[in-house]
Parts: sequence; structure tokens; C-alpha cells
Amino acid sequence: MSSPLSALATAAPAAAAVLAQRYHMVRQRTVTLCQPLLPEDTVVQPMIDVSPPKWHLAHVTWFFETFLLKEYLPGYTVYHPDYAFLFNSYYNSLGSRVNRADRGTLSRPALADVYRYRAHVDEQMEKLLALADELPSDFYELMELGLQHEQQHQELLATDIKYILSTSPLAPAYLKPATSAPTGTNSAEAEAASLPEVSWLPVPGGISRIGYEGTGFCFDNEQAPHEVLTADFELQNRLVTNGEYLQFIEAGGYQDFRYWLGEGWDLVQTQQWEAPLYWMLHDGRWHRFTHHGLQPVNLTAPVTHISFYEADAYAHWAGARLPTEPEWEVAARYFGANPTTGTFLESNLLDPQPLPANADPTHCHQLLGDAWEWTYSAYHPYPGYVRAAGALGEYNGKFMINQMVLRGGSCATPVSHIRLTYRNFFHADKRWQFTGIRLAR
Amino acid sequence: MSSPLSALATAAPAAAAVLAQRYHMVRQRTVTLCQPLLPEDTVVQPMIDVSPPKWHLAHVTWFFETFLLKEYLPGYTVYHPDYAFLFNSYYNSLGSRVNRADRGTLSRPALADVYRYRAHVDEQMEKLLALADELPSDFYELMELGLQHEQQHQELLATDIKYILSTSPLAPAYLKPATSAPTGTNSAEAEAASLPEVSWLPVPGGISRIGYEGTGFCFDNEQAPHEVLTADFELQNRLVTNGEYLQFIEAGGYQDFRYWLGEGWDLVQTQQWEAPLYWMLHDGRWHRFTHHGLQPVNLTAPVTHISFYEADAYAHWAGARLPTEPEWEVAARYFGANPTTGTFLESNLLDPQPLPANADPTHCHQLLGDAWEWTYSAYHPYPGYVRAAGALGEYNGKFMINQMVLRGGSCATPVSHIRLTYRNFFHADKRWQFTGIRLAR
Amino acid sequence: MSSPLSALATAAPAAAAVLAQRYHMVRQRTVTLCQPLLPEDTVVQPMIDVSPPKWHLAHVTWFFETFLLKEYLPGYTVYHPDYAFLFNSYYNSLGSRVNRADRGTLSRPALADVYRYRAHVDEQMEKLLALADELPSDFYELMELGLQHEQQHQELLATDIKYILSTSPLAPAYLKPATSAPTGTNSAEAEAASLPEVSWLPVPGGISRIGYEGTGFCFDNEQAPHEVLTADFELQNRLVTNGEYLQFIEAGGYQDFRYWLGEGWDLVQTQQWEAPLYWMLHDGRWHRFTHHGLQPVNLTAPVTHISFYEADAYAHWAGARLPTEPEWEVAARYFGANPTTGTFLESNLLDPQPLPANADPTHCHQLLGDAWEWTYSAYHPYPGYVRAAGALGEYNGKFMINQMVLRGGSCATPVSHIRLTYRNFFHADKRWQFTGIRLAR
Amino acid sequence: MSSPLSALATAAPAAAAVLAQRYHMVRQRTVTLCQPLLPEDTVVQPMIDVSPPKWHLAHVTWFFETFLLKEYLPGYTVYHPDYAFLFNSYYNSLGSRVNRADRGTLSRPALADVYRYRAHVDEQMEKLLALADELPSDFYELMELGLQHEQQHQELLATDIKYILSTSPLAPAYLKPATSAPTGTNSAEAEAASLPEVSWLPVPGGISRIGYEGTGFCFDNEQAPHEVLTADFELQNRLVTNGEYLQFIEAGGYQDFRYWLGEGWDLVQTQQWEAPLYWMLHDGRWHRFTHHGLQPVNLTAPVTHISFYEADAYAHWAGARLPTEPEWEVAARYFGANPTTGTFLESNLLDPQPLPANADPTHCHQLLGDAWEWTYSAYHPYPGYVRAAGALGEYNGKFMINQMVLRGGSCATPVSHIRLTYRNFFHADKRWQFTGIRLAR
Repeated sequence: MSSPLSALATAAPAAAAVLAQRYHMVRQRTVTLCQPLLPEDTVVQPMIDVSPPKWHLAHVTWFFETFLLKEYLPGYTVYHPDYAFLFNSYYNSLGSRVNRADRGTLSRPALADVYRYRAHVDEQMEKLLALADELPSDFYELMELGLQHEQQHQELLATDIKYILSTSPLAPAYLKPATSAPTGTNSAEAEAASLPEVSWLPVPGGISRIGYEGTGFCFDNEQAPHEVLTADFELQNRLVTNGEYLQFIEAGGYQDFRYWLGEGWDLVQTQQWEAPLYWMLHDGRWHRFTHHGLQPVNLTAPVTHISFYEADAYAHWAGARLPTEPEWEVAARYFGANPTTGTFLESNLLDPQPLPANADPTHCHQLLGDAWEWTYSAYHPYPGYVRAAGALGEYNGKFMINQMVLRGGSCATPVSHIRLTYRNFFHADKRWQFTGIRLAR
Repeated sequence: MSSPLSALATAAPAAAAVLAQRYHMVRQRTVTLCQPLLPEDTVVQPMIDVSPPKWHLAHVTWFFETFLLKEYLPGYTVYHPDYAFLFNSYYNSLGSRVNRADRGTLSRPALADVYRYRAHVDEQMEKLLALADELPSDFYELMELGLQHEQQHQELLATDIKYILSTSPLAPAYLKPATSAPTGTNSAEAEAASLPEVSWLPVPGGISRIGYEGTGFCFDNEQAPHEVLTADFELQNRLVTNGEYLQFIEAGGYQDFRYWLGEGWDLVQTQQWEAPLYWMLHDGRWHRFTHHGLQPVNLTAPVTHISFYEADAYAHWAGARLPTEPEWEVAARYFGANPTTGTFLESNLLDPQPLPANADPTHCHQLLGDAWEWTYSAYHPYPGYVRAAGALGEYNGKFMINQMVLRGGSCATPVSHIRLTYRNFFHADKRWQFTGIRLAR
Repeated sequence: MSSPLSALATAAPAAAAVLAQRYHMVRQRTVTLCQPLLPEDTVVQPMIDVSPPKWHLAHVTWFFETFLLKEYLPGYTVYHPDYAFLFNSYYNSLGSRVNRADRGTLSRPALADVYRYRAHVDEQMEKLLALADELPSDFYELMELGLQHEQQHQELLATDIKYILSTSPLAPAYLKPATSAPTGTNSAEAEAASLPEVSWLPVPGGISRIGYEGTGFCFDNEQAPHEVLTADFELQNRLVTNGEYLQFIEAGGYQDFRYWLGEGWDLVQTQQWEAPLYWMLHDGRWHRFTHHGLQPVNLTAPVTHISFYEADAYAHWAGARLPTEPEWEVAARYFGANPTTGTFLESNLLDPQPLPANADPTHCHQLLGDAWEWTYSAYHPYPGYVRAAGALGEYNGKFMINQMVLRGGSCATPVSHIRLTYRNFFHADKRWQFTGIRLAR
Repeated sequence: MSSPLSALATAAPAAAAVLAQRYHMVRQRTVTLCQPLLPEDTVVQPMIDVSPPKWHLAHVTWFFETFLLKEYLPGYTVYHPDYAFLFNSYYNSLGSRVNRADRGTLSRPALADVYRYRAHVDEQMEKLLALADELPSDFYELMELGLQHEQQHQELLATDIKYILSTSPLAPAYLKPATSAPTGTNSAEAEAASLPEVSWLPVPGGISRIGYEGTGFCFDNEQAPHEVLTADFELQNRLVTNGEYLQFIEAGGYQDFRYWLGEGWDLVQTQQWEAPLYWMLHDGRWHRFTHHGLQPVNLTAPVTHISFYEADAYAHWAGARLPTEPEWEVAARYFGANPTTGTFLESNLLDPQPLPANADPTHCHQLLGDAWEWTYSAYHPYPGYVRAAGALGEYNGKFMINQMVLRGGSCATPVSHIRLTYRNFFHADKRWQFTGIRLAR
């Protein structure tokens, strides 16, 4: 397998010791994320997009086994002959596999067996990493990919766990409720009052470059970097809040087809959507299921768990629109977006956070972290994009149809995983991710 | 709730102490059945007919809570307000509930919580049973029904567990393989040779009574007892074996529409049936998934896990037919069927057993236990059948359409649960129960 | 093809001339039935059970071509090589064919081409009938079967045409409204008043013979004739009327699960059934779509277009039950049912008729004609039933599962087609036939 | 209704007489297109995307009635109160309507009634057009829209008719085979030999304007005109031919997942795609169903009836790619594309035509007419796009998700209907339009 990822990354070989430490930390975080779960929680699949946590734990391990150990560790034989069938996600190059919809029907291997599998692979990876100085640059690229891949699954784990726990009427909490819960008055008006006024920030038009051009890791879909032309436009200085979205609901937004794309309106009717995913009326007040159990809706926090259709309908109703992908990246570069103020997985809050009341209205907030921002751009190849040879050519390229780009990362994204050029993508009807709204005009 | 079950049973009040002991034993067996399972095994639902073992454990408990504790224990309040929603099976009278198809999406309450629920209800039932001498006969009837109901779920647990474990390519064993496994030669011919020749036993025609007329417990569907007219016919003296069924397979039975009912032939094609459920070719030899893991097909044991369609097609191919329900009961009475020689749940074998080589060819074997026998009779009400008032009127009566009657119990039926008059029923396409074939002509 | 139908019929060879005349009359009636249709009406298939009239016209013709001309007319070659694919209904023995659900997608061959096909086959049949004296008895049996088969399709044509026309909001009339339309007062009370009181007629129990034993034609499923045992029971002396059924509706029958079989209740909810098929409220009064267009519901006429589930729920509500198949035939023989007073296809009314106000209350009316009567018996083989060899073995036998028996014929049945022993069968959810209710107790 | 279409068009009012003549000509062509059809052909709907021709004939008429007659003709009352329900396509603003999937279940109104409806509306439109000089500019815009709308349905009629006739094994011809059918040798090699070599034509990068800026009619989705930036690229000088596409088939293109987008590969497998729609092997040679019946595949003609997935997979296999929408329009302007040499509806050939053997290899052929060219651009709003108020706001805007843009028109597009800026759009899986491939790199 000669240089399969030359298009995927240009990472300079890190010192082996550093790499081993990163490997350990990334792997450990995945386990930590699953710590609060019962074995029962790790096997179910309440909808097709959700994978059982047990499956995630094994799949990311299979990824290292398949692309690293089998390739580079002399004499390595696979841990179990059936695991490729069980834990291959979607690589046609690597053979047949369990139907995606059937992942939640498999009680075996047991969770403990999957942890044993992880321990085995970690042990072997340690051996391999000890040889790292002698391995080719391909190895380093694949290591990086394996780690980034596991970080992607950490976000999926966080959101899948939320969905799994939400299906029970018992509304179990994954995390203890934060002690800094809203004190004093609990009224919506009071909450909303504390949020700084929204403002529109102009972004001058012209030719800009987008796409990744650095020397670190990026996914193949962030390349080739290229020039784009954008017109003058304005972006809101923060994400749309629950309180603002609630006004759309109360104005009859879910009952008026005029705001909606046709396929979105069909979903509103057939799925009986009346609010974002996880919202429910409880004693006359809107609540949301969260990683902390059922909580009153915090009106000043960014709205999340909405489909592209809802984001677009909201924008119509608000007399605005969603930014395009080039606009988003141009603006993020223009405003010097950086992750230091955003909410990411590492915060362990697993909920997007309100801006402080004194946040600077001339600053563009929340571009990175908190909530993925739907763009009105389809997920298509950049100019010059080439699928890699071999199985990894299936990693990104084959999904470049019928999905919309989201940008900026969320409260469930590891901070070391996000980039200004990062392209996330989901079908327009998906709601179980931390997806939110940034308005443009 | 006055005398809701007068149509269901006429059980004489047992002494309270005896009743308490039976309660304990039945409840304990359910737990014992689940002992070998991991928590992971108890939550999945790989097909709609299968319920997660955790659900069974809770549902049978909810049954006692709902029909006994709430009715007869003064001051009793339900253990958890959401459990009726979660663990009601199909009683419209008792409100809304989780969709049947979604039972396997719920990881919570945890298995440990369900065991706590069981312990709580058992404790309260102990209190109630201490009052039994003062309770009306309705109470005794409902107690009996609760116990019989739990026994029904023991059979479902055994067969659902088998299905759950079968979905994994790892083919995990629920029980250790029996030590008395076939020794010596392993060849199909040798095995088959040891089985006594099948014989046809005549049953004289005339008017007979069927249905339950005793003083013990029976389900309402076994009544009213009534006269039936049967013509002379013959019944085979044992169940059809795997070896015999294999001849049907090898003769192209699954490829020739002429043997099949139309709806059965559609299933053969769309489901790609080529053999009974759980059979697979492995290194050129037929194996079956069993509670002991994957095992070579034992040619002398009765065939099981076949649909009515397969039973009927086999009978066509063999130049015979299935008995009707009246024929079966008339024959079982005529031959004096008794459970002493059959294989039941208590044997813990969970597989129907071959007849001994020296079994009497003039005797009608295996009428009770080993495998449920498909009859060519629809599950309809007996003359004089009346649905009970209240929720329990939904227990049996509303299913009396589009299902076929099976008779005799199986290796997964508790021996104290079976009767000559017992009417089991499944849709003609179901295969996950221990269903087998008795030929008539 | 030697004697394929020896089990089907024992018809004595009719004189060839008589046979030719019957052939001509039966064939002509099919064409007459289609006369009022536009070509557009003859191609659509608004639901899977309905076949386009053009398809019926061709299929019955293909039946004569396949089973008579190809077998007995020397040198006959098929009219068109593709017609077997297009017009074979369900005979696996005769090769692949258009999916049933796709019959309404085919605009070609044109209606005119199908009439040309009919003319061609009729011409050739005339040649064949000229040779009839020299043909074996098989020929006569197949001729009879072909004619009876075409009569069955006449009933299907009448009911399929009704369904096809009903789908349009224009509610087109197939027939001109009868001139004897209700005159004078139009009130429901007045109408209902004119109907004689219903009475219960006892039928003594005992052993009786059912099934066909004569020397004329019968279908194979009416044999073997055999003895049945029935208990004493009573039958209502007429069919349940629209007025009586309306009381069930108004008493909340469609809102109360207690009257319903489980699968029926599911249909009530998912299909939103609130009344029989074709009923709709129009300016506050119930109307029905009929062959005469939209008409006010005639309260004294028998209710029709109800599923088995509705018939059974009505019976529950009314404190009665449906008769079994043996009970029905025993009663029909006991009461000397004859077709002279019933409404059949030949009347061209295509609607069941009210009893005259002076109808004898001690007489059992409407047993033959007017409406098919749902029995609570599954359509299973009679004792001694044997499927014929060859394609015609598929005619009846393969449907003997999951369907319920209906008895007595309807206003769309040719009078020469009905018999006391005639077994019709439909799935319990079907409503587009003229199906009605006879109560027993 | 004040100026509802100000965003849709800026057409200068034509003289009323000219307008009346155009109205007459456009309306007449629709009728001419349906002339060869039988009534039977005009009612069926063999798949959901296809509408019955009868429905098209009525729907375009309803459009004039609704948006012109009701708005501008004093005292006009609708022809039939049910026709809005029957012939509204998708305008939520205009009330409920027949489900799209049920259009083919309606035999009534009869074809003759629909022609009467057309005649009535034409007569009333004549009256209205006589008043045209006094009508506001809105009227002129709506007239133009009505005519363009009917032209869009002419293309749909042509392609729906093709699909309808294709479903019959009789393969009926809509048009007589052209007399200029390939003469002399019929061999694929000979045919292919006559085609000029393909060449790649460079298009220089830079900033260009796209979108409509003229004074004639355009759809709202062609606006606002705006600047785009394209890099240098090359376009092939003609459409991909059947012969070239056949090489992809023969190279195993439909068996190798590596060329395919994931959702496309799923379709290849579930739909068992092995070639373009309408292709079938017949005596070892590829044939296509055409408006002239079944014909051998002409290797030099452009390939059509392929999905976006097939176009993209072919491009992958050929080492090229599809152009983006901006690239296509920039190139079309750069090459001065004009319709004079293309094949359009008016030619009545209804099949894309091969280039002449002596076609200039330095010229970019077939940009307009012959086949719609899939672009790798999603159908999204242009910058500045605003949905019109009222029902017509539903015309285009609500479809701007999950569809791909096609450019250039086809052999079924009226020549007066196409523009360089015209944006057609279909879901990526659609194949029943005349869709083809233009390669870029």
C-alpha cells in the first residue's frame, strides 16, 4: 500500500513519543465518554443514524487494526475473524458487513469483549509505535487519520448517546445537572433580557482563497485550496438563540408552508414536527431533553437539533438567509475566528452556551464550537479534489451528493479536531447533531 | 372488578401457603432462565416478534402489579408511574404504550432496575398472599392466571433468547453443550438408522367432546367444551424428524411451487427460505443454531422452527396432510397422551429429543412436549366462547383471526403449563417457536 | 393432458349446440357489462385488488385459448406471443407474468385490440365447438370451467368498475338511476318503518352433510361432501340493513376497541374507517357511491361493502355472532334457500334490495343473492380435498390460508353461477365486494 | 393581485394580436403531441414521476384558468368546481389536491371532457386577449408564464409518453420510424467510425457574469444575474455518445463500486441497473426503446436517459468530471452556443442526433438541444433570488434542495423555450428525461 493518503494529509512526522501520547489520550477520551453508560445503553439503535456505543468503541479500534496494524506491524493477525464483518462501517473495498440498520440487533460481542479488543489493539499499537522512527511517512498520515477518525466518532458517540437516552420516558441524565444552573428568577423574559442585542457585521466582497493550505492534517475534502468570489454580505454576530427560535414557533412557523422548502414541508407534516428535536411542552413550558436530563429551554442559549429545512424556514421567516459555504469560510477568516471562546467536547458541558451579557456586539461570536452552522451549500467536491486509491478513497468522496455542508464544530467536537476549513455534511433532514443557525443577508 | 374471570377458570381456592410457594417457584424460574444472559442480551429486539428479555421480566411483573396488587392490596400505589406505558403489552383497556416494534430501542430502565421492580412486587405479593384466606375467589383465579401468564412468557423467553443469540456471527451458546452429545460415528446415515420406523395409527371416527371440562385452570379459549364429529383417520406415531425433512429439502421441496400455498411460496421467494430457521450449511453439512451454539443437525430429532407453510408443503410432498385441531385432540385423548415422556422446559435441554431406538411402534409418541404441532385449523372461538369483561377480555379473544392452532407444547413449555386442551396459535409464517410436524392421512 | 379435472366436475356432456349457445351468452354478457365504460375506464387500477376491465376482458379469453384451443383445436397457434405474459393471472405452471400491482400501468394492447382478441378466440371456439361431439369428457369439463371462470370475472368486473368510478370526485354513474327511486317522504325513519321486524329462526342441531354431491358442475373446493355436526342455533331471517348498521356507527362502534378483533382495530385506526366503504357524509346525511352514482343511503336495504372485521364487530355489538360455514350451509338446506327471490347480476340493479314490507317474518330471506355473507370459518380444504394435477391445481387450492369463507352470492353474481355449496373467500380486510352480514346466535 | 411576478419577468407587452397567435400556436402543439395517443394511453401513470397525458392536458389549461381568467376576465366562473382539486399540481396556496401518486387512478373526467375543457378555456382566453390592450403589465407577464409553463409540460408530455409506451412488452411506436434510418451496413463499428474524434476545448478562467439580464422572459430562478469566478478548464466538444458509454458498460462500469457515489451504488444494486433506462439486450445486441419503438442502439448518437449517478460514474471512469453550473454557462457564452444546429421538439425526431461526420472538431457542439447536460451543481437559489408572493412563489423556489442542475435543453424542449441561462433540475436518480453527459476536466 504505497502512499495511499498522499492526497489526505501532509503531516510532518511527529516524534514517536509524542504520537504515542496523543494516541493514548484520544483513545482514553473515547472510553471516558462511555464511562457513564450501562452495558444496556451500549447496544441499542433507536434509529438508523444512531450507532450503538459498543459498535463505535469497536469500529474505531477496527480502523487502527485494519489500516495500521495489518499494514505495518510485522506478523500481525487479526484479533477475531468475524470482527471485520461486524465493525466495518461502509468500506466496500473491505468486504461485506452487517447492515447499518441491524447494528442494534447484536448483543454480542459483549461490551467487556469489546473493551478487551480495545486493550489488545492498544497493546499492539504500542508495539507498533515503538517502531515508528523506522516507518514511512504513510504510516504517520494513517496514524493521524486514525486519531482524527476516532475524534469524529467521539462527537457521534456524544450525540448518539443523547438520542439513546432520550427514547426512554424516564429521561435519564448522562451527566449530573450543572451546579451553576440558572438561579434567581426563572422567567423567559428575564433570561432573554440578559442577552446582548444581535448585530449584523459586514463582510466585504472580492476574491478569497478557501480550503486547507497548511502543513498539518486535513481531510481530503478540504482540498484543493482555491479562489472563490463572494459579494458584499452581512453575517449575524452570534448564533440564533432558543428564544428567537421560539418566536418563530409561536408565530406559527411550523404551520405555514410558505417558509418551507417542499421536501421540508412534507416532513413537517408526516413527522409532525412542531419544534426542534428533543423539545417538549411540559406543564405549559418548553423543555428539552439534554445530557443532563429534561431541562427547561434556556432562551439565551443557541438553538440546536434542527434540520436544514428548519434552519432555512427560520431564515425565511426572519427575512434573512443562510450563508453559503464560501461565505462562511471567508467570513470566519475575515473575523479571525478562533476556538478559544467556543464550547467544545473537552468542556464536558455537551450543550451550547449563551453569550455573556457583556459580549462585544461588534465581534463575531460562536463561529467555532457550540453548534454546527448549516450553510446553503451542497457537499460537493472542491475543484481539484481527487479520491484516494484503495479503501480510504471511500472515506469522504462517495458521500458528495444530497448532503449539505455545516461549518464550525459544536459543543460535542473535540477542540483539536476543528479547523476553519473543516467541512461537515449531513442530509437536510437530520436533527440529532448539535446543528444550529447563523443568519446572513 | 366483580368476577371478571368467571369465564376463564373455575379453580378451587388453594391453600394460601401452597399458593405462595407456587408463586415463588414460578417467579424464580423466570429469573433462572435469564441467569446466563449478559445485560446486553436483555435489551435487543432483532425482529418484531421477539421481545427483549428485560421487557419480559418487567411485563410479567407489571401483570401481577396491575391485576393483583392494585386490585386487592389495600393502599397499594404503583412502583413507577411510567412502567405501565413501558410494560403493558397490548391491553387497550389499560392505556397507551410503547409500540411493539420499539421495545428494543429502550435501554432504560436498566436490567438492575427491573430486578428491583421484581423484588418490590414479590415483596408486596407476599403481603397480599398473607391475606389470601380472606380474599374472594376472583383473587384466586387472577393469581392462577398471573402464574400461567408468566409460564407463557417463560416459553417466549426461551425462544426469544435463542433468536437474539442467533443473530451474531459469533454463535454464542446459552447453555453448555450437553455432555451426552452423540458419540461414536457422526454420520447421518448411522444416526438415522437408529430411529424406529414410523407407523400410522388409526383413530376411529365418531362424535367426541373436546375443550376443557375439568375443575382446574384453563384459558377461556379452551371453552366451551363441545362435541365434534371426526371421520376415521390415521396419525403418524411420532413427529417428523430432521432427517425426513432433509429429504424434502434435497428433493427440491423449496424450489417447487406445487407443494406450497400461494402466500407461502411468496415467502419462500422473498425471504429466500431454503431450510428451517437456524439451519445453515457449514463445510457441506447442515448445522443448526441451538441454545448450545451451532451444532450439526441431529437427523433423528424432530424437525422444528418451521412455518405452517413449510409444515403444509412437507405434508403435500409426503403424500399426507396435517391434522385438524379436533382430530388432534380426539387422537390425543384416544391415545391417552401424557407428558411423562415428553421433553419440557424443566429438562433444561431446550431441544426436542429423538425417540429411543427401541420405542414402541404401536404407541403414539411425542404428543405432549418436544415440538408444537401445527394443525390445519384456524384459531377461532369455540362454540359458546365469550370474551371476559374488562382488560382480560383482551387476553385471548381479539387474536382469533388469521392465526393457526398448534397443539401439544414443546421442549420450552413448562410441563405444569400444558394440557390436552391447550390451544396455542401463531401466524402461518412464524418460525421462531419450537414448531414441528405431525402427519395425518 | 389426461383428465386434469376429474376432481373438478362430473358434468354430463351437453349437446354441442346447447354448449355453443351458452358459450355465446356468457361471453356476450361480459361484453355487455363493459359497454357503458369509456376506454379510459378500462385501463386503471386504483388499488391492487382491482384489475382493469381491459385486463379482465383479455384474461378470461386467454383462459379459453390456453385450456381449450391449445389443447383441443388441431393446429391452433396463440394469437399473440406476449399475451400469456400479459394476461396470465397467477398460474406459476404457465410461466412469468406482469406483477399484479402493475396491471394498471399498461395502456397497450388497446381496448380495441382486446376486443379483436376476443373475436378471434370466439371464432376459433366456434370451430372447436363444432367438433365437440368427438371430444373427450375432459373437454366438456374444461368448457364448463371456462364458462364458470368467466362468470366469476363478471362479478369482479362489476365490483372493480364500481371501485374505479368511485375514485373520481365527479362520482360518475355507470347505470342511469332507477326510475323507481324512493318517492314521497325521504326520511330515514319513514324508510326504516317500512321494513318488517327481524326475527330469529331456529335450526335444529345434529349431523348433516355439506359439500357438493350432484351431477352438475362444482368447483373442486366444494368437495368432498362430508358430514358435519352442528348444535342447535338460530339465524336471523334477513340480512342486516344499512339502518341497523347505522345504529352501530352512531353508537360509537368505530371508536370502541372492545368490539373488534385486534387486527381489525389496527385497520380502523390506520385506515381511518368510520363507515362501510363508499359511505360519505354529504350535507349531514349519509350517502353511498353506487353504480348509479352518489345516492342517499337506503336504510332498509342490506348493508354491504364491509370487511369481515366490521361484520364481526357489528355482531359483537348486537350481542350476536356470525354463523360458521357448516351452520350456514346446514341452515340454507334446512330453509330450502332458492335463488328465485334474490337479487343477482341479471337484474342489472347492482345493489342489494330491501325486503318488501310484507315479507314473511317466518321465512329466511336473502340467503342467495343480494350480499355475500361473511362466515366465521377460514377457507380451508374440505376432508378429502385433492388439488388437481397441472395448472388448474392452482385454481383454488393454493389460496386455502388466511381467508374467510363467504356464502350465498350477491347482486353481482350471475344467478346460474351460484349454488348452496358455493364457497367464496376473501381476506378479512376486503371491502370492495358486495359483502354483508347475517347474524346467528 | 398586485404585480406578483415583478421578479419573474420583465417582458415588454407584446401586441395583443401577436400574443393571441402565440397562445394559439403553443396550445395547438400540446394537442398535436397527444394526437397519436389512444385514450387508454392518456390515463395511466406507470411510475410516480410520470403524469398521465390527460392530466397534463388539463393541468396546463387549469393554469390559464386560475392565473389569467379568474384574475382578469370580468365575471369568469370556473368551468368545473372539482377541477382545481383534480388538476392543481403542487400549489399549497391553492388548496388540497389529488396525491401525485394517484393521478393514474382517475379515469374520469374522460379525455373528451378534458378536450372540452381546453376548448372552453381557449374560447374564454380569446375573449380576454381581445381586452389585452387595457390590461396591466402583470397580465402580460402571467400570459408569458402560462405559455412557458405549457412548453415545459410539452417536454414532460414527450418523455412521459415515451415511458408509458415503454412499459408494454408490445413496444408500441409513437412515431413511424424515420425513413432516413441507417442504410447500408448496420454494424456498430461502421457507425462509430463515422463520428469525428472528440476534442477538448479550453475555456479561460476569470470573473464572468451568469444569470439572465435581458428584457425577454426568464424564470425567477435565473436571477439575480451575478458574477462568478471560474478557473481555467476544458470542455469536450460534443456530448458523450452511446458508443462511448457502451465501452463503460463493457468495461464493467456497473459492477465496480469505485466509480460511484454511495447512493448511486445502492441504486445500481437495488434497481439492478446495467445500462441506461430503455436499453435492453435483444439477440445479443443492445436496443433502446424509443418513440419509434424498439431500435438498435445508434452508437454515434448522444447517450441519454441516464441518472446523475451514471453521468458521474462515467466521468470518473473516463478520467474526467462533469462541469459545474457556472462553468457550463461561462463556456456556453464563450463558445457562443446557439440553438440553430441542435435537435429540439419542433424537429419531431424525439431523439438526440449524431454529429455529422464532418463536424468541425474545434467547435463546441450540441450545447443547446439534443440532451440535457448534468452539471455537478446543486439547484440552489442564485444570490439575490427572492420567491414571488402568492401561489407563484411556489413555482420554483420550494424545489431548491436535493436536486442537480441540468443545462442546455434537449430534443424534447421547444426551441423557443430554451436559453443559455435556463436552469433545469432533477433529483440525481431520475432517468426518464433526455439527460446526457458533457465531460469537463
